[in-house]
Amino acid sequence: MAGASDLPPLVDHHCHGVVSDDPDDETFASYLVESDAPAAPGTTFLDTQLGFAVRRWCPPLLDLEVHCPPEEYLARRRELGAAEVTRRLLGADGIADYLVDTGVTADLTGPAELAAAGGARAHEVVRLERLAEEAADTADTVASFLTALDDAVAEAARTAVGFKSVAAYRHGLDLAPEPPGDAEVRAAADRWLTGREAGDRVTDPVLLRRLLWSAVRTGLPLQLHTGFGDTDLRLDRCDPLLLTDFVRAVQPTGCPLVLLHGYPYHRHAAYLAHAYPHVYADVGLALNHTGARAGEVLAEALELTPFGKLLFSTDAYGLPELYVVGAAVFRGALTRLLSRWTGEGLWSYEDAERVAAMVCADNARRVYGLDRG
Amino acid sequence: MAGASDLPPLVDHHCHGVVSDDPDDETFASYLVESDAPAAPGTTFLDTQLGFAVRRWCPPLLDLEVHCPPEEYLARRRELGAAEVTRRLLGADGIADYLVDTGVTADLTGPAELAAAGGARAHEVVRLERLAEEAADTADTVASFLTALDDAVAEAARTAVGFKSVAAYRHGLDLAPEPPGDAEVRAAADRWLTGREAGDRVTDPVLLRRLLWSAVRTGLPLQLHTGFGDTDLRLDRCDPLLLTDFVRAVQPTGCPLVLLHGYPYHRHAAYLAHAYPHVYADVGLALNHTGARAGEVLAEALELTPFGKLLFSTDAYGLPELYVVGAAVFRGALTRLLSRWTGEGLWSYEDAERVAAMVCADNARRVYGLDRG
Amino acid sequence: MAGASDLPPLVDHHCHGVVSDDPDDETFASYLVESDAPAAPGTTFLDTQLGFAVRRWCPPLLDLEVHCPPEEYLARRRELGAAEVTRRLLGADGIADYLVDTGVTADLTGPAELAAAGGARAHEVVRLERLAEEAADTADTVASFLTALDDAVAEAARTAVGFKSVAAYRHGLDLAPEPPGDAEVRAAADRWLTGREAGDRVTDPVLLRRLLWSAVRTGLPLQLHTGFGDTDLRLDRCDPLLLTDFVRAVQPTGCPLVLLHGYPYHRHAAYLAHAYPHVYADVGLALNHTGARAGEVLAEALELTPFGKLLFSTDAYGLPELYVVGAAVFRGALTRLLSRWTGEGLWSYEDAERVAAMVCADNARRVYGLDRG
Repeated sequence: MAGASDLPPLVDHHCHGVVSDDPDDETFASYLVESDAPAAPGTTFLDTQLGFAVRRWCPPLLDLEVHCPPEEYLARRRELGAAEVTRRLLGADGIADYLVDTGVTADLTGPAELAAAGGARAHEVVRLERLAEEAADTADTVASFLTALDDAVAEAARTAVGFKSVAAYRHGLDLAPEPPGDAEVRAAADRWLTGREAGDRVTDPVLLRRLLWSAVRTGLPLQLHTGFGDTDLRLDRCDPLLLTDFVRAVQPTGCPLVLLHGYPYHRHAAYLAHAYPHVYADVGLALNHTGARAGEVLAEALELTPFGKLLFSTDAYGLPELYVVGAAVFRGALTRLLSRWTGEGLWSYEDAERVAAMVCADNARRVYGLDRG
Repeated sequence: MAGASDLPPLVDHHCHGVVSDDPDDETFASYLVESDAPAAPGTTFLDTQLGFAVRRWCPPLLDLEVHCPPEEYLARRRELGAAEVTRRLLGADGIADYLVDTGVTADLTGPAELAAAGGARAHEVVRLERLAEEAADTADTVASFLTALDDAVAEAARTAVGFKSVAAYRHGLDLAPEPPGDAEVRAAADRWLTGREAGDRVTDPVLLRRLLWSAVRTGLPLQLHTGFGDTDLRLDRCDPLLLTDFVRAVQPTGCPLVLLHGYPYHRHAAYLAHAYPHVYADVGLALNHTGARAGEVLAEALELTPFGKLLFSTDAYGLPELYVVGAAVFRGALTRLLSRWTGEGLWSYEDAERVAAMVCADNARRVYGLDRG
Repeated sequence: MAGASDLPPLVDHHCHGVVSDDPDDETFASYLVESDAPAAPGTTFLDTQLGFAVRRWCPPLLDLEVHCPPEEYLARRRELGAAEVTRRLLGADGIADYLVDTGVTADLTGPAELAAAGGARAHEVVRLERLAEEAADTADTVASFLTALDDAVAEAARTAVGFKSVAAYRHGLDLAPEPPGDAEVRAAADRWLTGREAGDRVTDPVLLRRLLWSAVRTGLPLQLHTGFGDTDLRLDRCDPLLLTDFVRAVQPTGCPLVLLHGYPYHRHAAYLAHAYPHVYADVGLALNHTGARAGEVLAEALELTPFGKLLFSTDAYGLPELYVVGAAVFRGALTRLLSRWTGEGLWSYEDAERVAAMVCADNARRVYGLDRG
């Protein structure tokens, strides 16, 4: 393991589009934290591990010094313009495949634009709750809503490489594990559709479970948000262990469940990936946000997660910087870990290279079938 | 970052007084653990991370060798006498400001004595539960109790720099988030006062919530014990995430909430400080008790906590040694972390110095308004 | 601390027998994980921290190169035969005393065979649930069941060095803390015995509590499984903090409670060992399974656990390799930690050697009375 530059191109199995316009300074900073309020008096969101990581990895790509002051970076960013910045940053992130969650309602670039800007391939991951909300926006009746939803899931399964659920945000992961019964679903749909305004989010646990099981039945990998996220969630209701009974209920179907993020419960996610054959783990979001500490967080995930079951992601959203940082932080963390373990004689070099190939790309290619015809 | 000696003088935003007399050997050792029972057969409380840290940092200040045997240290301590020991230790702790929780009923030195012994400034933090117990000790009726309590909170707010709650000890943090209604409070006060003996502690969750909201309305920073503590608490009911709904309820008021200690849930506290603008975090108690491991614990807190929101404290109590150790362990841990991150090129030296100044003192000065006229 | 070879012989206070026959490749691999299903498609259980640790430590003992390919290792293993492999591996594990949990129903070697193969002493730890199931297998009535059970506990207490409970697996640790009443116990026994088939496991919480308290009354150390284990348990119901009220209820009896494994809640177990005089902690299983990360896991356990209260174990089961790896990983982890802390001047060399002696053997000898007449 000579260094991070020896690692293979990455498959980013969970990310989002970027904004097309130039964000003002405050908007730029707001993408660096999972807070929906302004920074506390006397503080700035740039004084965070992620803020420092952006200043470590991105300035050289805009012809600036490493760690240059934020004002300088933001001025140069505006000077170049969003399109050029995106082109430069995505062109340098070392990512070969983007798996893009297209379910956010914000105005972000789609998979095709992302692929073009990054000189990479893009694949779509369909967010289940978005399908339900779109079906509800147009349905007149419970029956037409459920039909439209089933059609949308089936349609998505034809082109997408996987599904994603944000049930953690909408309700928490303390959901009953089994598929809900039809009468229950109809009653819940009726309650939701009655008086619903366009755009209202699905939060009913029965409907969320219906979505999860619709996806499970397609057999495509199902990504589940767990752990750390913005203030729409309650962190203690996002412990992946709350999914244990759901994991057991899904096991006979063989549908792969991919636990996203997990932090600070990533050891819990690793345990589930260790104990259950269809569970996979990821520490995407956590590496970006913990910056200089990403090596330790990744190492904790690598305690119990079998090496064939850990996936890489950036969870990048809005700023192309987050792709660069997510990839650089991951590569740096992985390289340091493997160097330490081989250096101490605990792992062989061949094994370290093999594991690097797995977590950088091969695991994701296999789980999502990216190389299928 | 040449070394710990380059760090600025510290603001210890959470500590207590020290004993004035010479503790016997067993009493001395009992201050090193959060246990209220004698040590297990064949063991001693000195064989702990904190015990080893005391022997690392304190003997030279009493003219002894580093790591000298406990018997030698304790003999020398008695020879010098408590007053001289306190003067020597506090004089060498590098702390410029003590924020003293004056709410313990044990016979400890007050802020003025501490400031004099340490050649520092002292400020008072008022413990809410103590105010309630004092009001109850003198009140004849529910009405006079509540009036006395309101007066005491208002009076304290005129001179103290903040309030502190030990609701974690008295009930646990699983409290209803909203302010209790007047009728509820009157009924709870009536239950408590009826048959109460002087000194009885307040444990009723309605009264504890009344205390919290009385403090919130003053706008002064409110310190909340979370995590690790003695056997009066149940650790799993002290997870700071149990405060999530309270944090949300307080947010519109802007009142700063300072989550003390947190360990082993310090990553949870860091998340709340990351996600909510009015939340701050501290790892005081945990650094002392984890000694040689303090660097890792501090590093975990520095994953998500924005750098402008982490505060230093010793949580020292009873022994002046705990000030010396708390400050030395913190300085050593911080210096090693910053050296590592700058050495790996992940942080700039300028940023590292700026962050050091923030967490050593500037954050606390700003949050508690210590430099206000 | 010159190196791991300077550490004293180990007392393995929690382990199991090994298989007598040659496992096929799939069976061999299945012993490396806490999963009861085949490995996920495209993955192998050998690509885990434990798999890599086996390949690090065991091949030289079978005359192979460190890190040789699994196929080569398994071929050589079959060539030598199970008896010779067991003799070589146990003969090189550096363990002086095995405390063997004899309560598993699988066909494994007993303490005497283990001691003979390893050139060591063996002692028995009796699993409580096994006693109940054996009593139930032969009893006609509730009264004869309870008498047989009491007799079995009394009989075991005469020869065993301790008891073990797997209540974590059978129900979870969320048990009422106090001893169950007689009527409750009779009713629960009646429910269980009615219609029970031979071999059915005891899962009723009242009966599990009866077992725990039967053991407590003998005064022998009581081992409790906590944390990580196979898919029979729900990890979040194995948090040792769930035992807090039980720990408090047992405290007046003085019966030592030994919290096994604990991972990923090992800091919680350490807290209980810190706060309560009769609680001890262990990180056995976790070190084996986290391999190259064992140093960090051990370090986390050494934050709050008083040094006189941490015990070593391998939790080896089935494969003699797990003894070798458990001992080697522990010795390597402990040596690196002590070298770091002494190297940084935080601990003295004398203290480091003293602590090493405690956790390697002396603590276990004292707690289990191994050197008693």
